[in-house]
Amino acid sequence: MPIDNNPLESNPYRGTRDFYPKNSIINWTDTISDQHKRNYIFSCFRKTLEANGFSEYSSSIIETQEAFLAKSGDELGSNQLYAFTDKGNRNIALRPELTLSVARMVANKLNNLRLPLRWYSIDNCFRYERPQKSRMREFWQCEVNIIGLPAGDVDLEALRLAVEIFKDFNASPEMYTIMYNHRGLLDRWVNINGWQDQQIKLFKILDDWFKVNIDTKSQSLVNLLGQASADKVINTVNQQGHDWQEYLTLAKEFPELNLILEVIPQLYPDISIIFTPAIIRGQAYYTGLIWEAFDNNKNNPRSLFGGGRFDDLLGLYGQSVPAIGFAPGEAPIHEFMENWNLYPTNSQSMETVGIMPQSSHDLTKIFSEIVPEIIKEGKTFDIDYDYHRNTDKRYEKLKKRGCGQIIKL
Amino acid sequence: MPIDNNPLESNPYRGTRDFYPKNSIINWTDTISDQHKRNYIFSCFRKTLEANGFSEYSSSIIETQEAFLAKSGDELGSNQLYAFTDKGNRNIALRPELTLSVARMVANKLNNLRLPLRWYSIDNCFRYERPQKSRMREFWQCEVNIIGLPAGDVDLEALRLAVEIFKDFNASPEMYTIMYNHRGLLDRWVNINGWQDQQIKLFKILDDWFKVNIDTKSQSLVNLLGQASADKVINTVNQQGHDWQEYLTLAKEFPELNLILEVIPQLYPDISIIFTPAIIRGQAYYTGLIWEAFDNNKNNPRSLFGGGRFDDLLGLYGQSVPAIGFAPGEAPIHEFMENWNLYPTNSQSMETVGIMPQSSHDLTKIFSEIVPEIIKEGKTFDIDYDYHRNTDKRYEKLKKRGCGQIIKL
Repeated sequence: MPIDNNPLESNPYRGTRDFYPKNSIINWTDTISDQHKRNYIFSCFRKTLEANGFSEYSSSIIETQEAFLAKSGDELGSNQLYAFTDKGNRNIALRPELTLSVARMVANKLNNLRLPLRWYSIDNCFRYERPQKSRMREFWQCEVNIIGLPAGDVDLEALRLAVEIFKDFNASPEMYTIMYNHRGLLDRWVNINGWQDQQIKLFKILDDWFKVNIDTKSQSLVNLLGQASADKVINTVNQQGHDWQEYLTLAKEFPELNLILEVIPQLYPDISIIFTPAIIRGQAYYTGLIWEAFDNNKNNPRSLFGGGRFDDLLGLYGQSVPAIGFAPGEAPIHEFMENWNLYPTNSQSMETVGIMPQSSHDLTKIFSEIVPEIIKEGKTFDIDYDYHRNTDKRYEKLKKRGCGQIIKL
Repeated sequence: MPIDNNPLESNPYRGTRDFYPKNSIINWTDTISDQHKRNYIFSCFRKTLEANGFSEYSSSIIETQEAFLAKSGDELGSNQLYAFTDKGNRNIALRPELTLSVARMVANKLNNLRLPLRWYSIDNCFRYERPQKSRMREFWQCEVNIIGLPAGDVDLEALRLAVEIFKDFNASPEMYTIMYNHRGLLDRWVNINGWQDQQIKLFKILDDWFKVNIDTKSQSLVNLLGQASADKVINTVNQQGHDWQEYLTLAKEFPELNLILEVIPQLYPDISIIFTPAIIRGQAYYTGLIWEAFDNNKNNPRSLFGGGRFDDLLGLYGQSVPAIGFAPGEAPIHEFMENWNLYPTNSQSMETVGIMPQSSHDLTKIFSEIVPEIIKEGKTFDIDYDYHRNTDKRYEKLKKRGCGQIIKL
């Protein structure tokens, strides 16, 4: 080892984070560490999903470049992809999302799988972009899917699960809003109104609806569709009059939407779950029901996660299989938890017992009697070996390291 | 999406695995799935380590190439490294092991850390090599370290922990052997015997001791050191006569070794924990105590994991900090578990209740009354939406999907 060389850079790779245990850091002011917060979010996902009949799978972070390019020709496919060539000249990529991997896994064993599948995975992804707060190059997602059932009553089950996710975080109804829509319905609405040629631009305006002020939106709509159609769109988004009734009537052509409109208000009378044409979901691969969950925090009213039905994606691997799902990310959920103060005040559940031997001669007793007893009581321990220091200093040190009880030999 | 194109390849990237949930696969013969097995191993690691005072940290899979090349100029540094250039022209690598990352993390916050640190991490690594059973390109390790204490009584704590790891896997003493040695002692032994010029070759012979038959080893030693020294080495490894006593006498110069020789047999009278010159540990960075754990399985007597003291590694980042640790891998532990039949027969702890609605009208009741009740009882559920099929077929389907109890509406 070239110890004499210049020291190596010790910062983490740009856009990635190091997660330190809380109790190791001097003057740590947070109640729990980033590592514990992340583990807490993951454990809430696991708890909710396992309880609701979902099973965990996982796959490698490496997929082929070809697959991501086939899925989307957009920025994700080209600019933002961590794309490399391995030593065997394979064009590989670090996955930018988790949906393609599950599509591949299902396609690979399709004849041996008992459909429908209720699967989830919690794993990391990479995107090459300018790192920002809660938008890092490496990030974690929980991918949740029901695979093998076409549009129908199962769509209610999937949307319901997106609501249930919030419950295990102890989020109360005033903290979040869920909005939903339907891609097939949007297409019908565009068609009967004759907006086909303006569809892409119209969807862009609707997609940005809650980020843009009303005057700007109105002007864009008037420019794009003329005054009458602009009014119609605005009335529909505002759930007003005949225009909104027309949208609701079209919705009845989609039985899963019909069921959701009826049942969701009964299941969640206190939660804001809003049916609106102003949810679009950028990704081209959605084919039916779509939804998005938002943080109600006034200072940070960001999208928390979205989902929907994607019946064509698995076709990339040869055979179409219908699917519906969503993928909450750790970073936006983390901000939501911080904003609303939802983290438990102390997730370090184990009490630490400090042990102060007087010399090496005490170690046999410590490891054969004292430590097994501490562990049996569900506690953990910390041993101080500074035999030469005075007792008060050693005591104080163990206290500072988080030991409640201290055993002096 | 170019659905019309040739279908994409659905096999996982060479040298990586897909982990499927058990209950999804038709005719799955194993009692639990690979995903559950891996989770079980990880949960045993976590349980043992948290109980023994260790805290979890984590870091990104990406590190700089420079760091790995500085650590070792060997095959790991060059041929086997997944080395790439990112879009910002940074030379990055997927980590081939976890020790360098923790060294970097500690160096990065050294002035703010409460030493000693008892830290662990469970994460994935990549090595570009020909994939073999239990030696894949992507693999998982549990990195365990005590950082900030020089050689001393803490070395006993570290070695003890390597034994404790086996206990939570329910491994009994006949299943494994732990062997230990000391790098400083080896150097002393070589020096007083005048073998300095033959040291590298001698260490190679000792490192392969349990893989090579005695005649071959003897001949190699005679060729290297002459008959008298060859006899001395063999006697020492066989713990025989004056030669072994000489090795034991030299060992007493190292207080931590002295303590371990005295205490370990008292703590673990039933477990084979053997002090021997035939443990070398290839990595150049070990500086003191070293150990290795072996599977006693006659058909597969492989090394399970090794560890030791590495007081110089952190110096790569500027300031030396003493450290000791080990890193059991998921793949060798998995083989050990399979060989000795140590996996629990059913880690799928939750009972699944099948639900058979007659129509969409039952769904409000299911999601508002039945499902919450099932979850409250610690069970999970599976809903069948095939209203048009006959009841017997639907019942049979839910049974095959693993439902014990079935609720018919």
